Amino acid sequence: MVELEVEPYGAKVNVKRGTRLLNALNTAGMTVRSECGGKGICGKCKVIIKDLSSFTETTDWKGELSNPELRSGYRLACGCAIVSDATVYVPEETRLMTRKFLIEGTERSVTVEPAVRKLFLRVPPPSLDDVRSDARRVLDALKETYGIDVVKIDYLLFKNMPRILRDAAWKVTAAVWNDKEVFSLEKGDTSDEAYGVAADIGTSKIIIYFSNLINSQIVTTESAENPQMKHGEDVISRISYALKSEAHLKEMQQAVTSCLNTMISEACKKLGLSPQQIYELTVVGNTAMHHLFLGIQPKHLGLSPYVPVVSDSINEKARNLRLKVNPAANVYVFPVIAGFVGGDAVADIISTGIHEANELSLVLDVGTNTEVILGNKRELTACSCASGPAFEGAHIKFGMKAVSGAIEKLDIEPNPYSVSYLTIGKVKPLGLCGSAVIDAVASLLKCQLVDRAGKFTEDFQSPRFAKMNGQKAFVLVSKMEGAARDIAITQKDVREIQLAKAAIYAGCSVLMKKRRIKPCDVKKLYIAGAFGNYINLTNAKMIGLLPDIPAERVTLVGNAAGAGARMALISRKMRQVATKVSRKVDYVELALEPDFQSEFTAAMFFPHRDLDRFPSLKNVF
Amino acid sequence: MVELEVEPYGAKVNVKRGTRLLNALNTAGMTVRSECGGKGICGKCKVIIKDLSSFTETTDWKGELSNPELRSGYRLACGCAIVSDATVYVPEETRLMTRKFLIEGTERSVTVEPAVRKLFLRVPPPSLDDVRSDARRVLDALKETYGIDVVKIDYLLFKNMPRILRDAAWKVTAAVWNDKEVFSLEKGDTSDEAYGVAADIGTSKIIIYFSNLINSQIVTTESAENPQMKHGEDVISRISYALKSEAHLKEMQQAVTSCLNTMISEACKKLGLSPQQIYELTVVGNTAMHHLFLGIQPKHLGLSPYVPVVSDSINEKARNLRLKVNPAANVYVFPVIAGFVGGDAVADIISTGIHEANELSLVLDVGTNTEVILGNKRELTACSCASGPAFEGAHIKFGMKAVSGAIEKLDIEPNPYSVSYLTIGKVKPLGLCGSAVIDAVASLLKCQLVDRAGKFTEDFQSPRFAKMNGQKAFVLVSKMEGAARDIAITQKDVREIQLAKAAIYAGCSVLMKKRRIKPCDVKKLYIAGAFGNYINLTNAKMIGLLPDIPAERVTLVGNAAGAGARMALISRKMRQVATKVSRKVDYVELALEPDFQSEFTAAMFFPHRDLDRFPSLKNVF
Repeated sequence: MVELEVEPYGAKVNVKRGTRLLNALNTAGMTVRSECGGKGICGKCKVIIKDLSSFTETTDWKGELSNPELRSGYRLACGCAIVSDATVYVPEETRLMTRKFLIEGTERSVTVEPAVRKLFLRVPPPSLDDVRSDARRVLDALKETYGIDVVKIDYLLFKNMPRILRDAAWKVTAAVWNDKEVFSLEKGDTSDEAYGVAADIGTSKIIIYFSNLINSQIVTTESAENPQMKHGEDVISRISYALKSEAHLKEMQQAVTSCLNTMISEACKKLGLSPQQIYELTVVGNTAMHHLFLGIQPKHLGLSPYVPVVSDSINEKARNLRLKVNPAANVYVFPVIAGFVGGDAVADIISTGIHEANELSLVLDVGTNTEVILGNKRELTACSCASGPAFEGAHIKFGMKAVSGAIEKLDIEPNPYSVSYLTIGKVKPLGLCGSAVIDAVASLLKCQLVDRAGKFTEDFQSPRFAKMNGQKAFVLVSKMEGAARDIAITQKDVREIQLAKAAIYAGCSVLMKKRRIKPCDVKKLYIAGAFGNYINLTNAKMIGLLPDIPAERVTLVGNAAGAGARMALISRKMRQVATKVSRKVDYVELALEPDFQSEFTAAMFFPHRDLDRFPSLKNVF
Repeated sequence: MVELEVEPYGAKVNVKRGTRLLNALNTAGMTVRSECGGKGICGKCKVIIKDLSSFTETTDWKGELSNPELRSGYRLACGCAIVSDATVYVPEETRLMTRKFLIEGTERSVTVEPAVRKLFLRVPPPSLDDVRSDARRVLDALKETYGIDVVKIDYLLFKNMPRILRDAAWKVTAAVWNDKEVFSLEKGDTSDEAYGVAADIGTSKIIIYFSNLINSQIVTTESAENPQMKHGEDVISRISYALKSEAHLKEMQQAVTSCLNTMISEACKKLGLSPQQIYELTVVGNTAMHHLFLGIQPKHLGLSPYVPVVSDSINEKARNLRLKVNPAANVYVFPVIAGFVGGDAVADIISTGIHEANELSLVLDVGTNTEVILGNKRELTACSCASGPAFEGAHIKFGMKAVSGAIEKLDIEPNPYSVSYLTIGKVKPLGLCGSAVIDAVASLLKCQLVDRAGKFTEDFQSPRFAKMNGQKAFVLVSKMEGAARDIAITQKDVREIQLAKAAIYAGCSVLMKKRRIKPCDVKKLYIAGAFGNYINLTNAKMIGLLPDIPAERVTLVGNAAGAGARMALISRKMRQVATKVSRKVDYVELALEPDFQSEFTAAMFFPHRDLDRFPSLKNVF
């Protein structure tokens, strides 16, 4: 036996003299890259050997190693056998990559294993002694070089295959999907070029993450308003529009596809890439967005019992979905859970990892519909709350999106009601984004200008009190104070917030009751969604938007659905996990829950009709 | 133990008292239909029980049995257990079908197991307690009712699925391909309606066999001239035309697809069916026809080393091939062997069954290119001979296709050269089809009017001798004798036949030499191709078209390629066999064989330069 030390890990392992280095590294638990499975072809398993005399070279495989590399001690791990105690250094490019997903405050590691592999091939040219078809010789070369038994070739590729192979003098790169299908063939070695797009189709906003599939880095991000918006801001209006006719449905599908195409084409221009170089897409969205993207009639999502047409994940060619990328690229569409709990909830789960956790977690993905997921690795329960778009600034008199000019943080000091605030982009304030609306309501409550029932008090003495369209209002920033216009919060705004937060709280509450769980049992609360990163947690709790869970257990995770789509883009395993998760989640239809209506009514109060629900606020109210 | 007698087979088997009848029948080796796997759902395993007291009914499953049936003793085999010695009759509809393919003189049985299954489902409707998606509940119903784990649904079906399910009150019939994909869903029970088309795309003629996939009967056959004909009668001219531009290639593809579409649409009209009811197609053709049908560039088929772009079988949706049948129907395209040995040769092999035979067989599929296949279950070797279209009547002065007015049989008696003949359709003779050309040449040879080198003798004394365009000619039927015009055979015609038959004979000869086989070792000779059914074997041997194999070993099998396509249409297993066969066949490129040229030259003589090759003709010459 001899000892092998592996740097930079510092691991030591004893192996038999004569063991192949590649095997020894595996024994030591150091998984290194080896696309050809140890045949000396791919050149990916290169390591630096400290003392060359401790190894024998069992083959003359030099892979793609250059002379300077060879002089520096680089060798292929598959071509060396260990003969005496030795030390090797595994350089970064040889390590099997894992990509860390940094979601604010949390971090998940995903092993990089995209469904798309680009593999360089030296295909033996035909001769009178070897008359195999072009296709067969490509598949045979894949088998011989990389040991993968691909059986399918995209039908349209047959049309160009003979020309590509001959133009390239039989040196080509095959793009292979899931080790099952060759769908693209390119001249020469392009194995280090592959891009993918993760798309998050939100009811209001569409975001694409443009990724390098080789090193799993995000190269650019684009976002745009969902162009379906003109047919309604919530999913119900979109469904109503789409069910009118086949033409309406088609229009809705085209709206989102052409938006994606525009974003992709702009990103490509910026990066100097061709859309042809995009080899896969992953798409996540709520169930209505999912159906409309696929051109599937969403009618029954709006009718009891609200069932989707399809819930399993879908893999379909980009050309059939009219996406302008490589026409044979696969589009992976996330599975959905139910009519109102879509792929975004599945993505929330896999990106927060609550399906693997021992501790009980709660995820709120706040939006026009707020998805609530409660559980851990044993059980998962989800529901959807019709929270409306108030937290996205809609239906609020001076509400706006979280863009430049929006007040994002706000506080009211009593006597004589001075208001401090922070504006996005540090420009003249134009309006209030969701987080500021929460701050405003919480401040009014704290100053007792609004009572626990949500009513403006009659004590109107300050010049900040006003009437707007017959509504009582409190001016937060007046034109004189430098705003573009008087920015106020009205009685109706407070009512909107009450409805929205009551819907979310009641959803959480019903789920917890069903599972016989108290807020104190929840060890982790993840808040996802557009406003997640700006929200003031104290104020959110003050108005009773969140259950009474200590602040240190709360994590703001931003666009968790988008993170899930990005994970699925670089990892086949995450797709299997998504399928498992989507089938495991127990869906609760709130409309069916006898407690829901009473929970909702009680939650209309600030923070709740029953103050026992908020023990940590007992000294405040 | 009790004894069960099974009629009409007369089989007897001893089974344990209490054994389920379905299992007892299986033990007795009587495979009966049971699509649901014995769950009392499909109603296919019905049998007639002679004495009902010999069984107990273990369930109340009555399947689809009517009251008159029940009174006549019909019961489901899956719902009865045997209690005492008993006799049951298995009616024809319950027997697992095998379909006999009658190819003239030979017969092959194929178990009917089409890739397409139509399965009636009672899908549980959704409720607030059961919010599975439409797709999931269809797949679950398939699993529960028929035990098959289908994972895929044709993407376009999602668009209509919700409407179909609800219009049909959740009673639907699913069309499933290869137990893998649901591709059609229909209202109500249409499980007894399914049609398929087997298409044989010949260089000259396209034939479709329209089949009922439920009972495997051919319902109609249509044929048409291949419309690519205007761009050349042989594959080389077609290839030359197609390689000129993308548009030419497309034109060639469209020509054959629209011909198929017209034939299918006419057949549907005749039968009162909708093209939607065609659920699968199988397509066979030589490699050039194969490439052109698929829109694949055939350029390299015409250039050494003559490799196809793709050789494995292809399954592609009808809509992608622009075939006007059910758009989601699968089109199975036969695998090919080499550039000049196509799917037709594979189909010849599976329909003659030489790949399963112990005895050594030779198959000749005579056409513009003649495929020659030699072998048995251990080895198969094939080559392609450029025999030209002479045997199809082309390049022969008075040659014509085997249609009404063509002389199909002919004999010349010497002194004073009287000619007897038989005309197709018993009308005025218009010309000579392939078989008559062979008869004419053989007769001229027999009368010594043509010598063994193929030269017209100088002894011109009869009025039947003539000169036509400077060519010596022999008038077979003159206008005066009732022909539409003087029908003759010319010196040039004899030369054409020499070239054609020499090509075929030399091909056979080279293959046999390579395998060290003598004609007397060949136990079966199958002659396939258009003229197969009319040919006079004695005359064919006389001119040396066939190796010297005794007549009793020769079988004329007509369109063996079409028979193979029909077999594949009703049997998944035959497709696996086709793939295996296509990979197993050893292809011989005649151009590379050093012996070929000398074999060809020697075979230009009648029957051969070396009379030792034809021992049975020694007394004739």
